[in-house]
Amino acid sequence: MADHDHEHKQQQESTDGAALQINQNHALSRTMMSFNLVLQKLPHLTDYLLPSASSRHDLMVIPNPMDRNEFYRPFHGFYVSDTDVILRRILYDLELAGSISPGDVVDVLAYHRAGPRSQIYLDPNVAVRAAIVTCGGLCPGMNTVIRELVVGLWELYGVRQIFGVPAGYMGFYSMNPIPLHLHTVHDWHKRGGTLLQTSRGGFDLHNIVDSIQRQGFNQVYIIGGDGTMRGALKIFNEICRRKLNIAVTGLPKTVDNDIGIIDRSFGFQTAVEIAQQAISAAHVEAESAVNGIGLVKLMGRSTGHIALHATLSSRDVDCCLIPENDFYLYGKGGLFEFLEQRLKKNGHVVVVVAEGAGQDLIPRTDAQKEERDESGNPVFLDVGSWLKSELNNWWSRDHPGELFTVKLIDPTYMVRAVPANATDNLYCTLLAHSAIHGIMAGYTGFVSGPINGNYAYIPLAEVAEAKNAVNTKDHKWAWVRSVTNQPDFENK
Amino acid sequence: MADHDHEHKQQQESTDGAALQINQNHALSRTMMSFNLVLQKLPHLTDYLLPSASSRHDLMVIPNPMDRNEFYRPFHGFYVSDTDVILRRILYDLELAGSISPGDVVDVLAYHRAGPRSQIYLDPNVAVRAAIVTCGGLCPGMNTVIRELVVGLWELYGVRQIFGVPAGYMGFYSMNPIPLHLHTVHDWHKRGGTLLQTSRGGFDLHNIVDSIQRQGFNQVYIIGGDGTMRGALKIFNEICRRKLNIAVTGLPKTVDNDIGIIDRSFGFQTAVEIAQQAISAAHVEAESAVNGIGLVKLMGRSTGHIALHATLSSRDVDCCLIPENDFYLYGKGGLFEFLEQRLKKNGHVVVVVAEGAGQDLIPRTDAQKEERDESGNPVFLDVGSWLKSELNNWWSRDHPGELFTVKLIDPTYMVRAVPANATDNLYCTLLAHSAIHGIMAGYTGFVSGPINGNYAYIPLAEVAEAKNAVNTKDHKWAWVRSVTNQPDFENK
Amino acid sequence: MADHDHEHKQQQESTDGAALQINQNHALSRTMMSFNLVLQKLPHLTDYLLPSASSRHDLMVIPNPMDRNEFYRPFHGFYVSDTDVILRRILYDLELAGSISPGDVVDVLAYHRAGPRSQIYLDPNVAVRAAIVTCGGLCPGMNTVIRELVVGLWELYGVRQIFGVPAGYMGFYSMNPIPLHLHTVHDWHKRGGTLLQTSRGGFDLHNIVDSIQRQGFNQVYIIGGDGTMRGALKIFNEICRRKLNIAVTGLPKTVDNDIGIIDRSFGFQTAVEIAQQAISAAHVEAESAVNGIGLVKLMGRSTGHIALHATLSSRDVDCCLIPENDFYLYGKGGLFEFLEQRLKKNGHVVVVVAEGAGQDLIPRTDAQKEERDESGNPVFLDVGSWLKSELNNWWSRDHPGELFTVKLIDPTYMVRAVPANATDNLYCTLLAHSAIHGIMAGYTGFVSGPINGNYAYIPLAEVAEAKNAVNTKDHKWAWVRSVTNQPDFENK
Amino acid sequence: MADHDHEHKQQQESTDGAALQINQNHALSRTMMSFNLVLQKLPHLTDYLLPSASSRHDLMVIPNPMDRNEFYRPFHGFYVSDTDVILRRILYDLELAGSISPGDVVDVLAYHRAGPRSQIYLDPNVAVRAAIVTCGGLCPGMNTVIRELVVGLWELYGVRQIFGVPAGYMGFYSMNPIPLHLHTVHDWHKRGGTLLQTSRGGFDLHNIVDSIQRQGFNQVYIIGGDGTMRGALKIFNEICRRKLNIAVTGLPKTVDNDIGIIDRSFGFQTAVEIAQQAISAAHVEAESAVNGIGLVKLMGRSTGHIALHATLSSRDVDCCLIPENDFYLYGKGGLFEFLEQRLKKNGHVVVVVAEGAGQDLIPRTDAQKEERDESGNPVFLDVGSWLKSELNNWWSRDHPGELFTVKLIDPTYMVRAVPANATDNLYCTLLAHSAIHGIMAGYTGFVSGPINGNYAYIPLAEVAEAKNAVNTKDHKWAWVRSVTNQPDFENK
Repeated sequence: MADHDHEHKQQQESTDGAALQINQNHALSRTMMSFNLVLQKLPHLTDYLLPSASSRHDLMVIPNPMDRNEFYRPFHGFYVSDTDVILRRILYDLELAGSISPGDVVDVLAYHRAGPRSQIYLDPNVAVRAAIVTCGGLCPGMNTVIRELVVGLWELYGVRQIFGVPAGYMGFYSMNPIPLHLHTVHDWHKRGGTLLQTSRGGFDLHNIVDSIQRQGFNQVYIIGGDGTMRGALKIFNEICRRKLNIAVTGLPKTVDNDIGIIDRSFGFQTAVEIAQQAISAAHVEAESAVNGIGLVKLMGRSTGHIALHATLSSRDVDCCLIPENDFYLYGKGGLFEFLEQRLKKNGHVVVVVAEGAGQDLIPRTDAQKEERDESGNPVFLDVGSWLKSELNNWWSRDHPGELFTVKLIDPTYMVRAVPANATDNLYCTLLAHSAIHGIMAGYTGFVSGPINGNYAYIPLAEVAEAKNAVNTKDHKWAWVRSVTNQPDFENK
Repeated sequence: MADHDHEHKQQQESTDGAALQINQNHALSRTMMSFNLVLQKLPHLTDYLLPSASSRHDLMVIPNPMDRNEFYRPFHGFYVSDTDVILRRILYDLELAGSISPGDVVDVLAYHRAGPRSQIYLDPNVAVRAAIVTCGGLCPGMNTVIRELVVGLWELYGVRQIFGVPAGYMGFYSMNPIPLHLHTVHDWHKRGGTLLQTSRGGFDLHNIVDSIQRQGFNQVYIIGGDGTMRGALKIFNEICRRKLNIAVTGLPKTVDNDIGIIDRSFGFQTAVEIAQQAISAAHVEAESAVNGIGLVKLMGRSTGHIALHATLSSRDVDCCLIPENDFYLYGKGGLFEFLEQRLKKNGHVVVVVAEGAGQDLIPRTDAQKEERDESGNPVFLDVGSWLKSELNNWWSRDHPGELFTVKLIDPTYMVRAVPANATDNLYCTLLAHSAIHGIMAGYTGFVSGPINGNYAYIPLAEVAEAKNAVNTKDHKWAWVRSVTNQPDFENK
Repeated sequence: MADHDHEHKQQQESTDGAALQINQNHALSRTMMSFNLVLQKLPHLTDYLLPSASSRHDLMVIPNPMDRNEFYRPFHGFYVSDTDVILRRILYDLELAGSISPGDVVDVLAYHRAGPRSQIYLDPNVAVRAAIVTCGGLCPGMNTVIRELVVGLWELYGVRQIFGVPAGYMGFYSMNPIPLHLHTVHDWHKRGGTLLQTSRGGFDLHNIVDSIQRQGFNQVYIIGGDGTMRGALKIFNEICRRKLNIAVTGLPKTVDNDIGIIDRSFGFQTAVEIAQQAISAAHVEAESAVNGIGLVKLMGRSTGHIALHATLSSRDVDCCLIPENDFYLYGKGGLFEFLEQRLKKNGHVVVVVAEGAGQDLIPRTDAQKEERDESGNPVFLDVGSWLKSELNNWWSRDHPGELFTVKLIDPTYMVRAVPANATDNLYCTLLAHSAIHGIMAGYTGFVSGPINGNYAYIPLAEVAEAKNAVNTKDHKWAWVRSVTNQPDFENK
Repeated sequence: MADHDHEHKQQQESTDGAALQINQNHALSRTMMSFNLVLQKLPHLTDYLLPSASSRHDLMVIPNPMDRNEFYRPFHGFYVSDTDVILRRILYDLELAGSISPGDVVDVLAYHRAGPRSQIYLDPNVAVRAAIVTCGGLCPGMNTVIRELVVGLWELYGVRQIFGVPAGYMGFYSMNPIPLHLHTVHDWHKRGGTLLQTSRGGFDLHNIVDSIQRQGFNQVYIIGGDGTMRGALKIFNEICRRKLNIAVTGLPKTVDNDIGIIDRSFGFQTAVEIAQQAISAAHVEAESAVNGIGLVKLMGRSTGHIALHATLSSRDVDCCLIPENDFYLYGKGGLFEFLEQRLKKNGHVVVVVAEGAGQDLIPRTDAQKEERDESGNPVFLDVGSWLKSELNNWWSRDHPGELFTVKLIDPTYMVRAVPANATDNLYCTLLAHSAIHGIMAGYTGFVSGPINGNYAYIPLAEVAEAKNAVNTKDHKWAWVRSVTNQPDFENK
């Protein structure tokens, strides 16, 4: 949607130059830059298969069935062409640009825009057999994505063989797929969680690809986080190796917003909304006590996006602690000095801490030092209860006998389990339709997602590697911190 | 925030080229394009004033007081420089690009990024006297913007003379300004409406500028819609003419999202959320009746953004009618034919209509033909009750004796009056801080707002002219319509 | 539930007298009163049928199947006996009591308590065939009632033949019943409206009873308002006349809370919650304008309960106008004098008006004077838009040129269409289970509902007549008005 | 409000006997019972003080100032008389009644109705100086009660000296009271928590009464739980002992609803609403996993009211564990056998556990056995994490290798911290006004609260002792359990 608006404005300005003439009364300075638009190529079934029509299951090229819709007709410009691209980088420093010598050329990545193509590569009426699977933890909007995949395949392309693979990756080889009818998914976008069920782990590459082949799926939609995307990449690679007529696409799901390249992940805005409500509750608890501290632990193992956004949304937060920014408790410039000052000034404080923050500060038992999670990383300790305990220790030592209350709120499961809000529901809808259009066009091994507000196709290989951390050395972060006015923990 | 993420990724890629190397296994195609980055110049107080320090009220240049913050220190890269820019156009068609002859150069507009500058132009401790005014109708987030202007001025720049001008433009010359203390605005971001009060009209240029001068304001923050922005431009021009040391900035407020250039306006996401609730209620009413029609009239006089976004968010809508797309009732391809089919299929339908849609279809009395609104345009007639009546006529004619129910819901005032949701609260916060940093840096006659996800400064003159309509000839709109699967009303 | 608590306390006190001894330090005064507990007898199938077992469809007497539940066993006291009663009148004036001569006896109505009986009158495994129908307008909680009827019949009594009659009374003879399985209704309690569909009118007594007989229904659950209850009474009487083995029960549904005897109707608390939100929006609009008036029109044709409760809940209301209390606009003690004073004092006012208020004040055209609604009463005119117009007239006459804004909010359909809140969901659950237990026990022609907090059975004939108006001559209403501090419109 | 409706109906029936005649076609059976209405006498200032007027601070008798209200006039019946009473017991078993011998008389407790009296005992314009204090944990509605005390005193009685005592009991002697103006509390009813701040403990009787005396308070409003009420009783007794012209009233606040006699406590309905949302989240988590268990820990140390009501409201709960009903994990009829069956049937289960349930089952360390809370009782252990761990043990033992997920949700602080919903806001409003009217009438040592839906005055001494447990031996509880269909844990 935002997408549309952008383009509209930009088209206008390129067509008639109107925007440029509006400000004729203001001087415009010009800086010449030469760009190479480097197009991020997408894998396509024709990379290893030749279209033919000896069998109705073969790769073939037919016109998009939307041409035959009863109520509207694709006009000129309805279909997106393969030469429609989106720039990834939009921020530049002209000073640096100015220092580039005239012959220099700056490489800029460009991605294919998402949307329906005029030609598709399988006849949806006879040949398409689609599988949808959800993996990993819950995130608002999962059911909307599933629903829209079903509705889009059914109504736009006439596909009737659509299946849900239950319980994550292991469902491919250990459970029966669930037929998904238009009526089955009718109101799923209003429900939290995933009605396909989900699980972690269970990734058994050859078992999965064998099962996909055996069950005759030729479109596989995989919804999950970064681990899931790495699994999807392996499935895609194995399918390529076997030269199968099966297209694979990933739909990135991460409530933490820690997947790179795309603007943000679905469910994230909803998560921030609920996190903000938890902060409000903490604020009420803090305000209602003498020297009250409201402590909110939010999701975010490697990144502090939810904590950061909820902090800026709620404006009740005195200090926001995220994994990307080390902090310390005692001493000059430390957390407790700051809290002491705020308590004196306002009588209460609210602290938000992302679950991955402060992991280096929490003492570990020998057993905990050895313990590893499923991915082989040291396990996370509970920063919320540790910090609550440290706060109580600090106060009883420095202010014996004085009233003090710490209330710890952990809204994690409520954040994960709610239905998506309007913004995220719209996102999930466009995301699912992007994925369908891409896969119908014969693309495979790709991911859909918004880049600078426009839906694009990105190679799965690229997304599986990209991270999205909060960059605390950037002037944008610094600016954000100036809003909260909290310490930078940069020096003692 | 999204802002931050983008930049981070882009900085990385420009620094170390990592992103480019991820996909070494995929061929990258390159297309050379030469751009002129045309920087949209901003008006600045020094355009007509010379800095000096003969009086403490003179324009002077001093370091940003954030340098002296107790808890954190601006590091290298904290301040935004005047050469940091954002590209406006990010969508290109490579085919066209390829056809450009080697020597051709494409002009691309670039805007100054928002953020704190290392030098400011007035000593906030002694000289700044800021006025904030809200004009026009209500919109979620107005109080958050006011609050953040006060909090940002107070805490980041140490300003203490901050005033609210009550009741819109007329308040400048007919009412006493209200002193706004940090404590006054404490919880305003949790309240709907505007605690400064607002009004329409009352724009008396010379009276306003005289009053600003007389009351000693040297920073004027004007929150309002497109009419208000045109007024702000006149105030700015008059101040330039008088060569006054007064900076003016506009903060665009339009629940309809009809202001151009910026990605979207504040309060819009909240409005869509509430609109979606009204659609849910209409859906319930429709489902609970035999041949039930839920009809929802949403805001949007010249643009259908709320209707469109709420339709895509809710997925309960069968047909969405907007001002940008003509429609007709009877005959082949018409609304009633479509509704008839949907009623037969599902037993009920939901129709969303933007208030500006179908104005040409509604019969006007002679009096109504003459009637003009405050801006001289023909008055809007109530499309909701007209359409309800037409629906009843149609049915009783074509289906006499059959049950039929139309329920009309108009959630307008509830949409306008709620507090901003988390997403919009964050937007309002960054918007207000952007405005403060810009005005402290000596810019004037400008507007703050997000462009492709990054906060930028835009000349007021440009914003006052720009429109943001839904472009129904674009392939994005077509795609969107394919989601709802509704008629295009293109032919009979 | 509240029910339970009461009884518990009362049982305690009757058993061990503990409550009486708590206050031994306070003098207790005693007043002797003699009561006749007049038990409101309920119609029962055995009033006109003799139990026998010649056919499995005959009236028979068998033990309650809950005796055989797998996980719990009915202990002594589990079943409610026919001698368990609830007093209707609980308020007395001792002075009057004292003046009663010794031999006098006061009649007090008592009702049978709701709950499972140890013996039932039809074998649910083989013979029960239940029909559920919803009539009239929407009300929060209808789907919960339907769901709980299905779940209760299915799980507690093992009934498997449960049908929904679609589209109200006419559905009996013009549509096919919908089989309702446990899975069908799984999540209906989370959805607004009625998934059985509803309609008004269509009451054709003999057609309906014939259809009931023909389709073999022997339990009929009728959900609807006062008109529907009068229809249910006729159906019951006709069934008695035909001496059929069919039990009929009414579940009163009225969002206006205008049905008598019961404490309140389901959905009412939810309606007040949503109405309060509309008042909040109106308050925001009023506060944000100069001389702003927020005008909220709420449901309530003959009674002002929603208006009254929402007024007391929200505390933002300056004046609440209800059908039971006449008002006038101009002159001493009139509405405008009062509003003028409030505007002067606070700068804004909020007015709530029930849709049935002020009908005598609104001028009617000759056509409108003749027009009657389906029940033959004069049609209601829109008091909201009339009052808005009168307010504008008043102001422009008395305060020409002064700013003034009236915003009218009508949340009607949103109030009707939301799902029930927790309080109402619990109510609907206990209501449905009460109805099932009663009908299984052979009662017929009755209604379930809370009396003084305890669920009771009431003859349908009594409920069909009873009204629940706000008594403005009572000292409770006067007290309520003292909270809002509004005029009594008692004199000029 | 409900209050009003009852009375209205009852008045009607006693006046004209109409209700009795409605059902002339049904036989009415009559059972004679003789009652002694035993009036629960309230303490009154005149119990130990004589009215006089030698000083303006003396006890005096003057007409209620509401007589002089500008906009309405107390009509006949406006004021409540001391002979207006409410029956406490409304449930009877006629069989037992019938067995009473003719001369026997049943004692029934009756309470004074709340409401304004025609005469008051202090001149509010000159002499009243009121103190309001909040003690103990948070509960939705506290701020509404405070606000309405201020508004009611100010607007109805013209009191201007109203003070908030900060931070609970200790605030009387260690902090300065906060003057509360009408404007101060303007929007407090929309905010959670208590803006007066609260604390536990700090009860120092003589210090408190000395301070009350020294600061000249003559009305003391104490908001708190059962411990607080016992403290209030001591304060009242000490004031009696000193024969001071100071009236004391308690406003019972307990989110657990564990205070006896009154129907329910304020904030309880709101708590159930939020608890239901947590259950919904747990249900989503459970449904989205393979063998998923959603475990929700709710408030309720000695009583299971919140757990019970939320279970019945949400209908997603398979088993509800409360302190009043012992349970066991393993073996026949145990929890795990039941859960196993439900998992097999539905694939997931939801369990709700009140914090006080199962305390006997949780193993205690020696230290924990010794540990006592502030009241000398054994400390509560965390039943939530214990049960989660036991569930995991059970499953991994009985179902090694099978997928299983337990998600534990503890919404405690979010439940406590939200603002009151409409139902509770109305409750708080009528509660506060009841308290004011009572204290103005010279009553002291009393509590206000609803009895069978009508607001009454109850001696503080009685409330301080009364408990409100769920009676699991009552047939109402059994019925409730039949709704959830869960085990009774009565036998192995």
